[in-house]
Amino acid sequence: MLRVEVAWMQALADCGAAKADHVDAVARAVDGWQPTLDPTEVEDAGNPVPALLRALRARVDDRDAARLLHAGLTSQDVLDSALMLLVRNASYRLRVDLDRTAQTLAGLAGQHRGSLMAGRTLTQYAVPTTFGLKAAQWLTGVLDAADHLDAVRRGLPVQCGGAAGTLSRAADLVPDPARAAEALADRLGLSSPGLPWHTRRAPVTRVGDALVEVLDALGVVAADVLTLGRPEIGEVREAPARGRGGSSTMPHKQNPVLATLVNAAALQAPQLGAQLHLCASQAVDERPPGAWHAEWPALRRLLSLSVVATAQAAELVAGLRVDTEAMDRRARAAADLLLSERGDASTGDPAAYLGATATFIDAALALFRGGRREA
Amino acid sequence: MLRVEVAWMQALADCGAAKADHVDAVARAVDGWQPTLDPTEVEDAGNPVPALLRALRARVDDRDAARLLHAGLTSQDVLDSALMLLVRNASYRLRVDLDRTAQTLAGLAGQHRGSLMAGRTLTQYAVPTTFGLKAAQWLTGVLDAADHLDAVRRGLPVQCGGAAGTLSRAADLVPDPARAAEALADRLGLSSPGLPWHTRRAPVTRVGDALVEVLDALGVVAADVLTLGRPEIGEVREAPARGRGGSSTMPHKQNPVLATLVNAAALQAPQLGAQLHLCASQAVDERPPGAWHAEWPALRRLLSLSVVATAQAAELVAGLRVDTEAMDRRARAAADLLLSERGDASTGDPAAYLGATATFIDAALALFRGGRREA
Amino acid sequence: MLRVEVAWMQALADCGAAKADHVDAVARAVDGWQPTLDPTEVEDAGNPVPALLRALRARVDDRDAARLLHAGLTSQDVLDSALMLLVRNASYRLRVDLDRTAQTLAGLAGQHRGSLMAGRTLTQYAVPTTFGLKAAQWLTGVLDAADHLDAVRRGLPVQCGGAAGTLSRAADLVPDPARAAEALADRLGLSSPGLPWHTRRAPVTRVGDALVEVLDALGVVAADVLTLGRPEIGEVREAPARGRGGSSTMPHKQNPVLATLVNAAALQAPQLGAQLHLCASQAVDERPPGAWHAEWPALRRLLSLSVVATAQAAELVAGLRVDTEAMDRRARAAADLLLSERGDASTGDPAAYLGATATFIDAALALFRGGRREA
Amino acid sequence: MLRVEVAWMQALADCGAAKADHVDAVARAVDGWQPTLDPTEVEDAGNPVPALLRALRARVDDRDAARLLHAGLTSQDVLDSALMLLVRNASYRLRVDLDRTAQTLAGLAGQHRGSLMAGRTLTQYAVPTTFGLKAAQWLTGVLDAADHLDAVRRGLPVQCGGAAGTLSRAADLVPDPARAAEALADRLGLSSPGLPWHTRRAPVTRVGDALVEVLDALGVVAADVLTLGRPEIGEVREAPARGRGGSSTMPHKQNPVLATLVNAAALQAPQLGAQLHLCASQAVDERPPGAWHAEWPALRRLLSLSVVATAQAAELVAGLRVDTEAMDRRARAAADLLLSERGDASTGDPAAYLGATATFIDAALALFRGGRREA
Repeated sequence: MLRVEVAWMQALADCGAAKADHVDAVARAVDGWQPTLDPTEVEDAGNPVPALLRALRARVDDRDAARLLHAGLTSQDVLDSALMLLVRNASYRLRVDLDRTAQTLAGLAGQHRGSLMAGRTLTQYAVPTTFGLKAAQWLTGVLDAADHLDAVRRGLPVQCGGAAGTLSRAADLVPDPARAAEALADRLGLSSPGLPWHTRRAPVTRVGDALVEVLDALGVVAADVLTLGRPEIGEVREAPARGRGGSSTMPHKQNPVLATLVNAAALQAPQLGAQLHLCASQAVDERPPGAWHAEWPALRRLLSLSVVATAQAAELVAGLRVDTEAMDRRARAAADLLLSERGDASTGDPAAYLGATATFIDAALALFRGGRREA
Repeated sequence: MLRVEVAWMQALADCGAAKADHVDAVARAVDGWQPTLDPTEVEDAGNPVPALLRALRARVDDRDAARLLHAGLTSQDVLDSALMLLVRNASYRLRVDLDRTAQTLAGLAGQHRGSLMAGRTLTQYAVPTTFGLKAAQWLTGVLDAADHLDAVRRGLPVQCGGAAGTLSRAADLVPDPARAAEALADRLGLSSPGLPWHTRRAPVTRVGDALVEVLDALGVVAADVLTLGRPEIGEVREAPARGRGGSSTMPHKQNPVLATLVNAAALQAPQLGAQLHLCASQAVDERPPGAWHAEWPALRRLLSLSVVATAQAAELVAGLRVDTEAMDRRARAAADLLLSERGDASTGDPAAYLGATATFIDAALALFRGGRREA
Repeated sequence: MLRVEVAWMQALADCGAAKADHVDAVARAVDGWQPTLDPTEVEDAGNPVPALLRALRARVDDRDAARLLHAGLTSQDVLDSALMLLVRNASYRLRVDLDRTAQTLAGLAGQHRGSLMAGRTLTQYAVPTTFGLKAAQWLTGVLDAADHLDAVRRGLPVQCGGAAGTLSRAADLVPDPARAAEALADRLGLSSPGLPWHTRRAPVTRVGDALVEVLDALGVVAADVLTLGRPEIGEVREAPARGRGGSSTMPHKQNPVLATLVNAAALQAPQLGAQLHLCASQAVDERPPGAWHAEWPALRRLLSLSVVATAQAAELVAGLRVDTEAMDRRARAAADLLLSERGDASTGDPAAYLGATATFIDAALALFRGGRREA
Repeated sequence: MLRVEVAWMQALADCGAAKADHVDAVARAVDGWQPTLDPTEVEDAGNPVPALLRALRARVDDRDAARLLHAGLTSQDVLDSALMLLVRNASYRLRVDLDRTAQTLAGLAGQHRGSLMAGRTLTQYAVPTTFGLKAAQWLTGVLDAADHLDAVRRGLPVQCGGAAGTLSRAADLVPDPARAAEALADRLGLSSPGLPWHTRRAPVTRVGDALVEVLDALGVVAADVLTLGRPEIGEVREAPARGRGGSSTMPHKQNPVLATLVNAAALQAPQLGAQLHLCASQAVDERPPGAWHAEWPALRRLLSLSVVATAQAAELVAGLRVDTEAMDRRARAAADLLLSERGDASTGDPAAYLGATATFIDAALALFRGGRREA
């Protein structure tokens, strides 16, 4: 939020309404400051901006600068823009971890191109597959989600509308207030949306949808690892790590903690995404009483959940123990079932009934290499 | 689903695995047929495809064609592809109604460029605005949602993976089963996803997210109309229509029925979108036991809700009664409050404190004209 | 809805405002009638009651009766009361199937009191347990949910408030309109809530919460059966049934269809319950524009989902194939892990480390027998 | 969690497995201790209990006591029981604030028994009502929710099952482990559930449902206040408070901040309740991988949201400014519409068409007085 206030002062300067001295005064006041706000004051305003401003103004040693601070903005401009900065920062971290995950999965897809494995549908044996194809499917899910996130990240808009989305006050300060809004976007490295979006929340719901899609994709990986790592199956296991997965009572326990936590995050994301949409649909008037306020906690929670779970997923896949021998043994033992679809044509060798698995793996790897270039 | 089965027979013919006679036989059997399926048979399979196939095979008078029917596919290929066709059809209808809505709103934005109105935030008077800007905001929400829907519609993928996503059986029928999957996509006019998405449900969740975004945008319009049409406000009213909005007991009643129903749809959409994401995150194995089955009802419900509410919204905005006199009178009566932000600089004329409203309206109209060209 | 209209005429007669002839005339008009309503007329009112009334009035051959019909009620009185009747009917069916399920589970709990089985936590072996305790846990979940449902069913209230919850019009017809509301409750066998609940939706959300709790409990059974019936585990399987669980392509397939469908229902219920609460929280004014309309589809869907899934669950548990030999073999093979908690004290026999399993089974069975008596 | 560990040591002592010295040693170690846990250690276990135990054991100066600490429990026993304690504490605070709210609303219902007001349905004028009845409806919603919460609070169960719900380890320490579980319940003042509920989550979902019902009831109050406090209506307003409701840019602004925040809470609660149910339905095995972990954040968030919003609601209603003159003036101005239901019988005086409003107010007040006695 402080970055937004400073950037706005810069935007005012860009448009001739503030001086370099004013910008400097505000920048000085902000520099290294860790504000502590009075919760009652925050509650009294219904949002933290007025309390922050009061404290900030007291720190600005130039009276004109203090008066110009925030002039023309409304609380929601500051909060929404700050949330977009937060999203951008989180997206960078997400992108790094999704890339790590994709890198690992691409390696697994290539390496296990021929690792025979029982295909399972509705929990029962279906036809043979390979672990390479499973990894390729996981990979494609991650790449698609990362693409979606990139697209959203590139369009994150600044919020700049003033009290009721008209930039009325700013228009008294600068000749072209819409130009000041663009200057704010430039200063913050956000995109310029053309008009304020106080009551059009697609910028927020699109972030939410993309984050939920990330957790959907990682949730599938986690759910598969939890299943395949059951002791009776034992084909893919989470890596044991010193001190991880222990139990408070059973010394032997090696719980799949990362998969568990990623699964837990995936189970939480859909309701948080729904929360954002619900708020979007109730954005009445020029700024709504409640629908906006119910949005921040869901977005913040979804961001932190995503960042943590994506890091956990990257570590999870990096450490996977793939037991190709167990896979092969099981697929061969279940050959009769796995080949029942083929009927009389069956050779009895499940590895001879892999259909287009290799082609599909190649398709996923091509997507991976393409995506890499673009990123 | 019948279209998918016919198209698959064509795809097999395209790849040399079926003859034109087979295609004709299946096409004949399907032509004009309105199948009635036994609910028990459907429940027994957990999905309608096996029951449909049994009935269809009995109608195909060419034994070889009957045997080839569906060969290489799995139920989910048929259902998922059929859902994508359903989405495409619904999207066309949605697009038409969203275009009507956008057209009307663009007209209102232009026409009411100067219609002074009290801006309201957190339910209270804020600064002046114009009804043109409100219409421009509604318009931008609708255009953004329509764009989002277009993008999703253009990428709707065919599903073609066979029993466990390997096209194993198809590979016994045709030299290049992935090519057969592409042929199926071509025949249905769907896109070719490279590899099956039995357990990667982003194609479904993206449809859901786009539909929810449509209903978010229309929900805002409805919520505003409900507020502004309250008798104490009376600035924008839903058109009275013969026989509409009546009460079962009060003869005078003129309820804003369309706005009510659109609002009701917007209140339902977020949970339906969340349902799709939840299912996506639990898509375990090569095909999951339940997560897939919980997806169809939510998607179908969301589609029908969207189609109906979008038509209602188009009619709602087309009939809006805008009382500019009431708006103006109220804004002038509340001038003191509406101008308090301006302080001493105030002229007392709210119409002189409209900031960038005209610029913002122009931005929305430019987006509208641009979008029109692209659509 | 017709039952409610007839009952209201009876209530008016009970209070001296209608004659027996009027009641007879309406009862005759309703008898055996299967009304078909014009969807446009329904949409125009935003609810089906006015269209139903128009059609019904045309069938009533006594002019006074036709005029008195519905007099004093509002659409919501009819719809809400009809929904409560629907809930009551569905609850009876649910109760029968939950009782069947509980009976079966009690049998399994007793019969498998000593059936040794590996306990599993976070997917990994923990300490030994018995299948009897697992069945006892399932049983307790079902009994608790059935109790909850019973409590809700016993309190289902009539809705009777007139146009805005004041019974204004009824007060012109009868000396004590609140007494007429009680008469309506008596005639319908619903409870009398003291005052209307047009905007207090706890009667609806409590139904929803109870239904979701039923599906939570059954969902756990389904999830366990899906896991334990995996071919690699094979301890508890859904019964094969002629024609059930087949695949559209794989002849050998025996899918756990009932468990799959129950799991699918359990994955859908929470969102539907949330929908009801959301509507409850937005019930503004004397009757809200949209929040009420968004409630019916969710409640109806939740009812049908519950009724179907509860019948499926009863059949599922009735047919379970419990392979105690497989359980025993696995537990003994994993004895080292299952006994690691015990450390040096271990005898090596997992059956000697069952703690309070028998006591817990007894507790569940006592609850079952107690519940039986009360039901 | 520390309280649970101490209580368990006491329970062991009650059953003869620990000495008074052991209890004292643990109690000393816990006294005044504010543990700081290493986040990595917490993540590694997937829950905070092992890290807490390691730190606590290091503080216990009696080696035997340190060894006995937690013996027989599992992490989930500690966390679930601690959550129930948290719920109990929060419930006390909720109860106090709900009582304050009910007290105020009962006062308003009585005081405004005759305060004429326009009834509004689907946003439009319906028939006359009184503000007393509106307050009585709010009151009844609050009383019902408080009753529901009381019922849940009285049954909060202890969790005590050991590693996999069998109390296997406890059975090596005490003669009757189920008795030790009861002793733990006694020591904590929680109820004894008969058998563990590691995978039967109704104790959690029932808490959630009750809290959501509280927020539903308060949400209706907030939504009504937001509507009635619009400047064009102005019948009921949130009290202005020094420093509250201000804007960051408009000096005149008096935003209804409390109603806004309560509304925001009510918009968030349904999704959180759904989260709990979803987790409940996926509680597979003896303890599930993820469904349990996704439950805590939702429950904690729902608790804090409820506690804060209930306090805000109590303050909101305590400060309401009721403008009976505005109500009366508006109802009389709209008399034609408000009396259209009555038709020719109308006297033209809306105050003469109040139906059963007084009876309904009495019913609510009787419930209030009855509830007061019982609480």
